[in-house]
Amino acid sequence: MRRSIALACSSAKIMSLASKSDEEIIQQVRSKKIAFYGLEQALAPDYDRAIRIRREIVKTDMCPSTASKHPLDTLPYQNYNWERVVGQCCENILGYVPVPVGIAGPLMMDGKEVALPMATTEGALVASTHRGARAINLSGGCRTALLKEGMTRAPVVEVDSFEEAIAVCRFCEDNFEMLKAAFESTTRFGKLRSIKCAMAGREVHMRFSAFTGDAMGMNMITKGCDKALGVLKEHIPSIRVLSLSGNFCTDKKPSAVNWIEGRGKSVVAEAVIKKDVVEKVLKCTVDNIVKLNVSKNLRGSALAGSIGGFNAHAANVVAAMYIATGQDPAQVVESSTCMTSIDKVGEDMLLSVTMPSIEVGAVGGGTGLPSQRAMLELMGCAGANAESPGENSRQIARVVAGAVMCGELSLMAGHAAGHLLSAHMKLNRKPSGP
Amino acid sequence: MRRSIALACSSAKIMSLASKSDEEIIQQVRSKKIAFYGLEQALAPDYDRAIRIRREIVKTDMCPSTASKHPLDTLPYQNYNWERVVGQCCENILGYVPVPVGIAGPLMMDGKEVALPMATTEGALVASTHRGARAINLSGGCRTALLKEGMTRAPVVEVDSFEEAIAVCRFCEDNFEMLKAAFESTTRFGKLRSIKCAMAGREVHMRFSAFTGDAMGMNMITKGCDKALGVLKEHIPSIRVLSLSGNFCTDKKPSAVNWIEGRGKSVVAEAVIKKDVVEKVLKCTVDNIVKLNVSKNLRGSALAGSIGGFNAHAANVVAAMYIATGQDPAQVVESSTCMTSIDKVGEDMLLSVTMPSIEVGAVGGGTGLPSQRAMLELMGCAGANAESPGENSRQIARVVAGAVMCGELSLMAGHAAGHLLSAHMKLNRKPSGP
Amino acid sequence: MRRSIALACSSAKIMSLASKSDEEIIQQVRSKKIAFYGLEQALAPDYDRAIRIRREIVKTDMCPSTASKHPLDTLPYQNYNWERVVGQCCENILGYVPVPVGIAGPLMMDGKEVALPMATTEGALVASTHRGARAINLSGGCRTALLKEGMTRAPVVEVDSFEEAIAVCRFCEDNFEMLKAAFESTTRFGKLRSIKCAMAGREVHMRFSAFTGDAMGMNMITKGCDKALGVLKEHIPSIRVLSLSGNFCTDKKPSAVNWIEGRGKSVVAEAVIKKDVVEKVLKCTVDNIVKLNVSKNLRGSALAGSIGGFNAHAANVVAAMYIATGQDPAQVVESSTCMTSIDKVGEDMLLSVTMPSIEVGAVGGGTGLPSQRAMLELMGCAGANAESPGENSRQIARVVAGAVMCGELSLMAGHAAGHLLSAHMKLNRKPSGP
Amino acid sequence: MRRSIALACSSAKIMSLASKSDEEIIQQVRSKKIAFYGLEQALAPDYDRAIRIRREIVKTDMCPSTASKHPLDTLPYQNYNWERVVGQCCENILGYVPVPVGIAGPLMMDGKEVALPMATTEGALVASTHRGARAINLSGGCRTALLKEGMTRAPVVEVDSFEEAIAVCRFCEDNFEMLKAAFESTTRFGKLRSIKCAMAGREVHMRFSAFTGDAMGMNMITKGCDKALGVLKEHIPSIRVLSLSGNFCTDKKPSAVNWIEGRGKSVVAEAVIKKDVVEKVLKCTVDNIVKLNVSKNLRGSALAGSIGGFNAHAANVVAAMYIATGQDPAQVVESSTCMTSIDKVGEDMLLSVTMPSIEVGAVGGGTGLPSQRAMLELMGCAGANAESPGENSRQIARVVAGAVMCGELSLMAGHAAGHLLSAHMKLNRKPSGP
Repeated sequence: MRRSIALACSSAKIMSLASKSDEEIIQQVRSKKIAFYGLEQALAPDYDRAIRIRREIVKTDMCPSTASKHPLDTLPYQNYNWERVVGQCCENILGYVPVPVGIAGPLMMDGKEVALPMATTEGALVASTHRGARAINLSGGCRTALLKEGMTRAPVVEVDSFEEAIAVCRFCEDNFEMLKAAFESTTRFGKLRSIKCAMAGREVHMRFSAFTGDAMGMNMITKGCDKALGVLKEHIPSIRVLSLSGNFCTDKKPSAVNWIEGRGKSVVAEAVIKKDVVEKVLKCTVDNIVKLNVSKNLRGSALAGSIGGFNAHAANVVAAMYIATGQDPAQVVESSTCMTSIDKVGEDMLLSVTMPSIEVGAVGGGTGLPSQRAMLELMGCAGANAESPGENSRQIARVVAGAVMCGELSLMAGHAAGHLLSAHMKLNRKPSGP
Repeated sequence: MRRSIALACSSAKIMSLASKSDEEIIQQVRSKKIAFYGLEQALAPDYDRAIRIRREIVKTDMCPSTASKHPLDTLPYQNYNWERVVGQCCENILGYVPVPVGIAGPLMMDGKEVALPMATTEGALVASTHRGARAINLSGGCRTALLKEGMTRAPVVEVDSFEEAIAVCRFCEDNFEMLKAAFESTTRFGKLRSIKCAMAGREVHMRFSAFTGDAMGMNMITKGCDKALGVLKEHIPSIRVLSLSGNFCTDKKPSAVNWIEGRGKSVVAEAVIKKDVVEKVLKCTVDNIVKLNVSKNLRGSALAGSIGGFNAHAANVVAAMYIATGQDPAQVVESSTCMTSIDKVGEDMLLSVTMPSIEVGAVGGGTGLPSQRAMLELMGCAGANAESPGENSRQIARVVAGAVMCGELSLMAGHAAGHLLSAHMKLNRKPSGP
Repeated sequence: MRRSIALACSSAKIMSLASKSDEEIIQQVRSKKIAFYGLEQALAPDYDRAIRIRREIVKTDMCPSTASKHPLDTLPYQNYNWERVVGQCCENILGYVPVPVGIAGPLMMDGKEVALPMATTEGALVASTHRGARAINLSGGCRTALLKEGMTRAPVVEVDSFEEAIAVCRFCEDNFEMLKAAFESTTRFGKLRSIKCAMAGREVHMRFSAFTGDAMGMNMITKGCDKALGVLKEHIPSIRVLSLSGNFCTDKKPSAVNWIEGRGKSVVAEAVIKKDVVEKVLKCTVDNIVKLNVSKNLRGSALAGSIGGFNAHAANVVAAMYIATGQDPAQVVESSTCMTSIDKVGEDMLLSVTMPSIEVGAVGGGTGLPSQRAMLELMGCAGANAESPGENSRQIARVVAGAVMCGELSLMAGHAAGHLLSAHMKLNRKPSGP
Repeated sequence: MRRSIALACSSAKIMSLASKSDEEIIQQVRSKKIAFYGLEQALAPDYDRAIRIRREIVKTDMCPSTASKHPLDTLPYQNYNWERVVGQCCENILGYVPVPVGIAGPLMMDGKEVALPMATTEGALVASTHRGARAINLSGGCRTALLKEGMTRAPVVEVDSFEEAIAVCRFCEDNFEMLKAAFESTTRFGKLRSIKCAMAGREVHMRFSAFTGDAMGMNMITKGCDKALGVLKEHIPSIRVLSLSGNFCTDKKPSAVNWIEGRGKSVVAEAVIKKDVVEKVLKCTVDNIVKLNVSKNLRGSALAGSIGGFNAHAANVVAAMYIATGQDPAQVVESSTCMTSIDKVGEDMLLSVTMPSIEVGAVGGGTGLPSQRAMLELMGCAGANAESPGENSRQIARVVAGAVMCGELSLMAGHAAGHLLSAHMKLNRKPSGP
């Protein structure tokens, strides 16, 4: 696929394209001399023009509209730094959707204040998280800890015999250092931590777990796995890699393996909310929230057959922070698994969250886009941490857990006080709405 | 919380604030005369100014920076239609993050072409989906069907005795029409379809399922539940509503109940990919993909203990389309549950997806923001469908399923052909990256 | 397979075999004139002889032993009513294992006393259940309710097109009465209640749920499904039944569908344990048990990724009663799913269990064997209930739930009081044991 | 509870009781001078008499019957070795239920023949397993491997602060050897292998995994945990053990943790079934079984939301072998989790099972009862293996996996050939049945 682009885009051609009119270029796309998806590369570095031309083609050829104003005219694309996007973050670009960003907090966390930027279109979410942060701050702040760290990738390989399948499993135990060396030869930061094997027939599903510095790490680990499998193949030649990702990873799908083994950062956080704060700020009682937590977050989720969904709305906060900071929003699926625990300690309320698979990075992917990176800077954890590699991504994970705790506190208090309905109705709905 | 805003914002005050300088207003926020979160209401309709002032406060008081340029200076906020956001979609606004939008397709689906707008920062995702669409189109397009429809909400109530708990369950069966009438008195479009009860101690978890027109429907159903519970309380007076949402719903958490019972729209889709297309466009063989689907999407996910995650990367496509069209990205958690089935039929390949809980709306929430609504218009399903209420939201769900199928096809083919690594490496990584 | 037996066992042959010596018959088995598994039929009605001869063959030909006494000499087989077993409950018979039966209770349940026979080899289990029953009785007994009833079976069928697969799903909704009539034409007692369809590719998984009288009902429903599918095939001729059981049932496997939809009998039970009883009989406090229930049965099971395992040891009690009463012990897998809820009400303790899939019968299978049937008689619910068909099997389910509650109460109290270790150590272990 | 027995049973008393009439003793039970459950100890070693007297009391006082023959008269109790039961395996003894034992196989496994004793009342089960064994033997037998071994127990402890909870987790990593030494000081055979911690609030759930020799090992590990926690408490004094078993173990409940981490023995097994055998013995085709395995054991179970239930009927075989050999039948819940994989290799069929949590012992519990032990002897793995501790229990696990494979093969072939219904109907049903 990419080869054809390469052919179409020799530098001579690029020169000549710049001098052609938009209409001429559109004709070349129609006649397949330029690929529709190849416009950016054909017109580089004038990405605005490439996008403008694509929009024109979409408007005329793909999605014609009878409306006075074509929908695309409402999608902004100008004054944006497209060279950070092209070839890295998006293809067939039409423009961008603006997602509103609100700020909750700052939250007093591990002894210092952190801002909580959230990109969302759900009314009340930022306000609610903000209220939770305030209640936590009034009670002295919260604490977090990172219990485990490791991005995972699970290739699935196949061999020719039962004995060889067993041999693959044993090799990972007996020659771990050899595979580790191969893996780490591909990366400056990555450190292979473990390989967990599961057999099904003559397939072996091999879950690699690795420290990946400040990157979320999926690409780093994929490269490392590829190399390690090469070494394994030298010893067990019949191995065929069916896929570098065999879903035992598990990426972007609900799974117990991430809930139990962790993926990315495994974080816990807690805060003790003073009785007074519960009653005066959150307008309910400690006993009511403790009881509701059992009824809703434990029993309700248990009746629903949930694995890892023992919380009120962790995904709301995770999704909003992920979009604001350029994380991968599809990873909200597993990053938002969370058990919220609420207990009475003395007269006060102990609140905590257990989040075993927060997948975040301070570099790579969407974190490199200017606005998203700015939000990481606002949180104090953008880019690679030169002194302590990985510390920035760990801090993002901690902040996410802290923010989730704010969201849990506020929503649980809202439910306990009985004003779920009113809050949403006020903030999110127009009288004329359906 | 909202009352204090009201007090602070009488119209007289607003007048006078407009004439004050930014610095004076900042002082009023510092002295708590104006609430930090109340700036938009205090300065309405000059939301740009409200946001500018908040940014100033964040820069000076909350997140001071020693850098030459403060991070917030990189976050855009001007030239945006904030009155669609304030009071509905976001609070404590700082600006917006632009999320790049690419277009995949159009996909030939149910006999007509549909565009697939995707907002993403993951390199290769749009290109991959586009390639999948092309392969499907070359094979004659795809078909979809909506098997079931119903947004759900599950209040948890408590009673004083075992007998009353049983009575609640029986009442929902025996007097369903009465509860339905109460529910539907609160809404023009909503139709209550069923109530499913589960008991735990003297709690009853009542899962309401309702048709909600073109809205995703969470607020509509919450209001209806509230009313129905009021009627129930007339007959079983000891009922106490512990929460209008008791997690048996289940919203934004992984759960088997949604996988098995459905939530939102339950959609299936299929396409038959010609042998030639598999080999020439996708560069692999039918047998290889069929086999890989078993190894990865069935066995791998089964070994991982997944409920509903029997797919390659449905969440990628769902998240990208949800962000592009203003859906709730936290609902990607359950909306992306999907079983991808791949079988050989004759010499060709039968591809299908089973997606029981796609939660989407054509009105409400983020779908009302201009750019997001434009993307729905591009897909031909924005706003309430006057002729056939619900048809627009159903169409969104179908398009999502169709797009997921494109993504599955392309990625599975990529895995089967062994170029996962190379595709990601080329598109997503800078040579200098970690 | 069975045909060869038929051939080997014409009545003339049987006559002649009776007059042959054991050694001659052994020779005929060795020379394959009589099938090893056909001995009972060959020598009927002298089953003792058939078994004795088989034991001889096993001892000499299959499992010779150098020990002075062959292991089989320790397995009893005489003085047993084998005609109830042959052709119905077991094949290739060697004898029987005696499983010790203890009695717990009687338990005061729904206003009358019921005995709890338990067949077990786990020390302390009967004593513990007995203690739980005593505590419940001292507090006034317990209450049960059956919320739902229906054995399930889910054939998987395949069709030739997407449209036909959809048609299968729609047919089940639109023509339910037609399928119901076909189903019920095969059975005196069975009543089809619902059909729930799920699609995967061009397969439809159809979960039939039916009332099955006093039988556990698997065979009854299988026969009914077969007939209903025949009728369906008349309308959608391309249907092929891949299997009468496609695992969406789900039988004898852990599954969320049974937990959420129920299978067999869905029962809840509760008891209020007086504060005094908790303290004096169970030697702990209400607060301690309530707290432990959250820590262990909710949080612990949630961390473990359990679907339906929110209890202390329901399976112990279920297995013991199933073996005692001739139920299918493989169904303990799903019959033991249970959520144990413990709350404080006033000063007392509210204990309850939610058990959605208790699969039991009062007739059929092992319930027809004399000792097992005697245990059902002891419980007052053996055989078909002539007046109210199904009432006996419902009562078994209620008693199982009541017994589980006794077991939960006692074990939870034991844990809360800290003597798990000591109880097991005393009862179950020899000083010389490993 | 046990203390009162002790008081009632001084040796003097025992003397005198022996000389009393049954009626006198019954009076003493009625007047609570002898506890109902204390009869065995009161009359030791005349256990027959104790049981006879208890039966009398049950017949007259607890479960009087108007029938001509009391149900208990049908429950055998004489001629049984009660001293192996009393104080170890059962309390409140009434007698025993005989469970019919059939033999399947022998199965050619790992190069030698093993008999498969099964205790069951389900018609066709032994015959079906036998048929599977025959097909495997005709194809050259099967292979097994044990991938992992470790019984688990997860105490839940609580501490006074977040920092201490973290400290507990860290201590298990940093001072594992210290805890291991403490654990192993309590046992001759047990070897602590790992401790896996999960936090929820200020609770830590600590999953200990240990080699337990030839014992199933629950008691051994409980004792070891208790000791290790004692050592931990010396370093983190605020620790309170809420329970020695906090369900993160997980024992006798469905759970993902056992499916993913294993419990007891993790075994895989495979056999290649020749095309000819599939067609002539099993009466179906390789392609049909391969396809059905995907439809039923993968897709059907996936649609059902199963964790670990990707098989046809593993629990049937596991339950039957567990009852025959004195294993704990409540552990069938997790011991029967199994993924059955069926693939085509060349023209033949590759069959395999993945069973990560087979919990079995060759000593202890019901394995010490004469008949059950005899069945272990028949399999060649009774009692502690002196030369290689643990080898006997490992062999039991391998045989269970092999037998499960036989059962899977036969049932899948039966389904594929379409005769599920007929087989069950013939074997299990009386014409007059319901």
